[in-house]
Amino acid sequence: MTGSLSHIDAEGTARMVDVGAKPDTRRVAVASGVITMSDEALAAVRAGNAPKGDVLGTARIAGIMAAKKTGDLVPMCHPLALDAVNIDFSFEDEGEFAGSIRATATASITGKTGIEMEAITAVSIALVTIYDMAKALDKGMVISGIRLIEKLGGKSGHWKAQGWI
Amino acid sequence: MTGSLSHIDAEGTARMVDVGAKPDTRRVAVASGVITMSDEALAAVRAGNAPKGDVLGTARIAGIMAAKKTGDLVPMCHPLALDAVNIDFSFEDEGEFAGSIRATATASITGKTGIEMEAITAVSIALVTIYDMAKALDKGMVISGIRLIEKLGGKSGHWKAQGWI
Amino acid sequence: MTGSLSHIDAEGTARMVDVGAKPDTRRVAVASGVITMSDEALAAVRAGNAPKGDVLGTARIAGIMAAKKTGDLVPMCHPLALDAVNIDFSFEDEGEFAGSIRATATASITGKTGIEMEAITAVSIALVTIYDMAKALDKGMVISGIRLIEKLGGKSGHWKAQGWI
Amino acid sequence: MTGSLSHIDAEGTARMVDVGAKPDTRRVAVASGVITMSDEALAAVRAGNAPKGDVLGTARIAGIMAAKKTGDLVPMCHPLALDAVNIDFSFEDEGEFAGSIRATATASITGKTGIEMEAITAVSIALVTIYDMAKALDKGMVISGIRLIEKLGGKSGHWKAQGWI
Amino acid sequence: MTGSLSHIDAEGTARMVDVGAKPDTRRVAVASGVITMSDEALAAVRAGNAPKGDVLGTARIAGIMAAKKTGDLVPMCHPLALDAVNIDFSFEDEGEFAGSIRATATASITGKTGIEMEAITAVSIALVTIYDMAKALDKGMVISGIRLIEKLGGKSGHWKAQGWI
Amino acid sequence: MTGSLSHIDAEGTARMVDVGAKPDTRRVAVASGVITMSDEALAAVRAGNAPKGDVLGTARIAGIMAAKKTGDLVPMCHPLALDAVNIDFSFEDEGEFAGSIRATATASITGKTGIEMEAITAVSIALVTIYDMAKALDKGMVISGIRLIEKLGGKSGHWKAQGWI
Repeated sequence: MTGSLSHIDAEGTARMVDVGAKPDTRRVAVASGVITMSDEALAAVRAGNAPKGDVLGTARIAGIMAAKKTGDLVPMCHPLALDAVNIDFSFEDEGEFAGSIRATATASITGKTGIEMEAITAVSIALVTIYDMAKALDKGMVISGIRLIEKLGGKSGHWKAQGWI
Repeated sequence: MTGSLSHIDAEGTARMVDVGAKPDTRRVAVASGVITMSDEALAAVRAGNAPKGDVLGTARIAGIMAAKKTGDLVPMCHPLALDAVNIDFSFEDEGEFAGSIRATATASITGKTGIEMEAITAVSIALVTIYDMAKALDKGMVISGIRLIEKLGGKSGHWKAQGWI
Repeated sequence: MTGSLSHIDAEGTARMVDVGAKPDTRRVAVASGVITMSDEALAAVRAGNAPKGDVLGTARIAGIMAAKKTGDLVPMCHPLALDAVNIDFSFEDEGEFAGSIRATATASITGKTGIEMEAITAVSIALVTIYDMAKALDKGMVISGIRLIEKLGGKSGHWKAQGWI
Repeated sequence: MTGSLSHIDAEGTARMVDVGAKPDTRRVAVASGVITMSDEALAAVRAGNAPKGDVLGTARIAGIMAAKKTGDLVPMCHPLALDAVNIDFSFEDEGEFAGSIRATATASITGKTGIEMEAITAVSIALVTIYDMAKALDKGMVISGIRLIEKLGGKSGHWKAQGWI
Repeated sequence: MTGSLSHIDAEGTARMVDVGAKPDTRRVAVASGVITMSDEALAAVRAGNAPKGDVLGTARIAGIMAAKKTGDLVPMCHPLALDAVNIDFSFEDEGEFAGSIRATATASITGKTGIEMEAITAVSIALVTIYDMAKALDKGMVISGIRLIEKLGGKSGHWKAQGWI
Repeated sequence: MTGSLSHIDAEGTARMVDVGAKPDTRRVAVASGVITMSDEALAAVRAGNAPKGDVLGTARIAGIMAAKKTGDLVPMCHPLALDAVNIDFSFEDEGEFAGSIRATATASITGKTGIEMEAITAVSIALVTIYDMAKALDKGMVISGIRLIEKLGGKSGHWKAQGWI
């Protein structure tokens, strides 16, 4: 095995990576994921969204606020001063995730360390919030496909998930 | 549409449900989800886990601590005094999620409201933490299948997800 | 002076009141306050509210989430397991606060101690959030009239602010 | 209407403003507000303050600690690394707010974004804490006049509220 | 070895203890600890305390607020609805800890689980705060003797530390 | 008395120090402390540590996460963007603290203000967590010797505690 877990030191204990020697650079990360639900629940979210936007509006704010708490939730993450994090939702009408709501989060920072955990955390909590808001209609909803889509800046440069254009 | 979103009132604004009239009853919820990764990353997590247990040990603690923050993360959730929340991990060697690590969280409370959001939040943040701990080896990991598996207690009684024994 | 500050002991140091001997009873508190702004800012909030509801929608969620953090914000407050907290907004078209947005929060609990600080905190942070969302249009907005309107339950029974019907 | 709500995008959804392209500059913000109470309550706070300072001392610390949580309370606020935040109290003996305690907060940062929300949050929670500490004497206290007084640094330069010297 | 670590299960992983079957009973815990400092620093704290009480006043509030966060700080602790927590300070003029400030915290709850971690956390953070407030005078201060002094209620009944009357 | 308490202003009120004029420099702080326990409890921690590492593993994560919350726990501390914080444990077999577990935390930052409070907070909460994990075996454990060991960077340069090589 040539790879290594960057948070684990030679003796196997959990460690924060010291980012003190890294320069401040502009970094952007995009993450995405979906929640699949019954037609009934989906219709209620869509309708609830049409006049007042509260299901997705609540999930958006929950995701943005969670991104700001990433360093408080993920033990080895650095506390970061985000430039911004925002979330978009779309309804997936076809393909693997037809009947799903997709959440896509974009986070950015001018800093020493990557911002992908903030984007992934934002997506995760936004989807968990949708579950909470719609669970009276469908307890069997499933959250899937949470992943990093794209990453710019830092040592690893531009990275894009396979199969995403 | 006969269903309704319990957090949305007649005018479509987001609302907390008033649980004041509900009795305190024992409630249990089980949620589960997986993270799929490359063979290399999986081998590193397994090996890291064998001698010292830190990847999964860190993820377990992150998930437990996140469950206690559910009311702070999910806007319409009540702050709850959990009886307990615990997380188990297993390696999926076959089936839909072969090559994945499964996290299963069990949360319990003696209270007025269900505990499923705590179990789902615990699973989500445990998996996000595994992503963080292994991302140096594989940026393409995917978190999937986060769902409620079982729910006991409260008005809706015993509920079990389809396809789970 | 016959009154005394309940959080201050005989020697003048700050203290939490011990509520251990109090019974659990149903308690409700209603608080209210306003933010006064320029016509331009008010029109933007109204318009922003009409199609998508995001200014007030964001403020509502901020206020609800802040209420859940009251024990973390106000040093001598007990951490409480709220039954519910909700916020309503209205536009004041006449009277002392014409040209203002009013936020009214209702909090309830079945517990040993009053819930008025949660209602007041919810109103305060909801109004501060409106300031944040509209400050690009008007830096001179003023938040006023934050007060307890009504209180039910507990030793002091039913209390209502003077001048409120 | 020529103005626009900076946190709301073209489609009306709530958004964090991306501050990545802004330079780090020194910024200062001053905010102020009052709490009006009965003579009895005011006398108790004054007396409590004279020998031991605990009412205002507690409110001061609550306000300072709340300022550090602004990004956790106000959804679209950036998490900021404050240079400092401090709070002063004065007793208003005459004018519109005679019989009130005034809280004035000064916050400063060397950063990309303004610090006014931190000053306003500090004032708000300091006043809410005074309410909590004195509510056994007077439930009818009113919090008023919370506003930005002065702002230095950043694109908008030096701004001062009308009527403040 | 006949004892066992209550948070560690048969396979050695960290676990929260399920307190669901325990009855609600009144529980009290007292913890104590000291910080030893130079004569110069001690004199400044005493003098600072005499007129305005701010060093110890700040430490008191920090300790009380930290006690309310115990479940957020100590991974396997349950989130608890404290009845009260309070802190007293004294100056140790003789004995093992002459030249020290002692912090003693008393926490109480009517609940299913003990309150000793809240008392110990309150003492720890109160002392850490004194360090912070006085460190410009003495970087060599030492915090010692943090321990549980007394515990009432629950299965183990009345427990008192050896050597404490 | 020539010294002064840097957080206390001329009138004795608690204040955050304004660090706006300080340059960003690399700073490191090391703090340490011990917990002394019965032979039985120590053997259980050692054994629990040998196969799975969960007692110390849990304490390590608790300490790291607490360090990130220092600004939220210690009232006059600045919120800081840590470069890293890590914790090591050792078993003290001889000397003043024989029969103890020592926790040593190293924190670093590139910033305007020192990082010693983060290191001290990490040690304190790591030791409090060990207490929590082992208290079923020994309620009489004592936490001692929490102190700053070494400090590099900033105006005061290189500082080392007396008696530490």
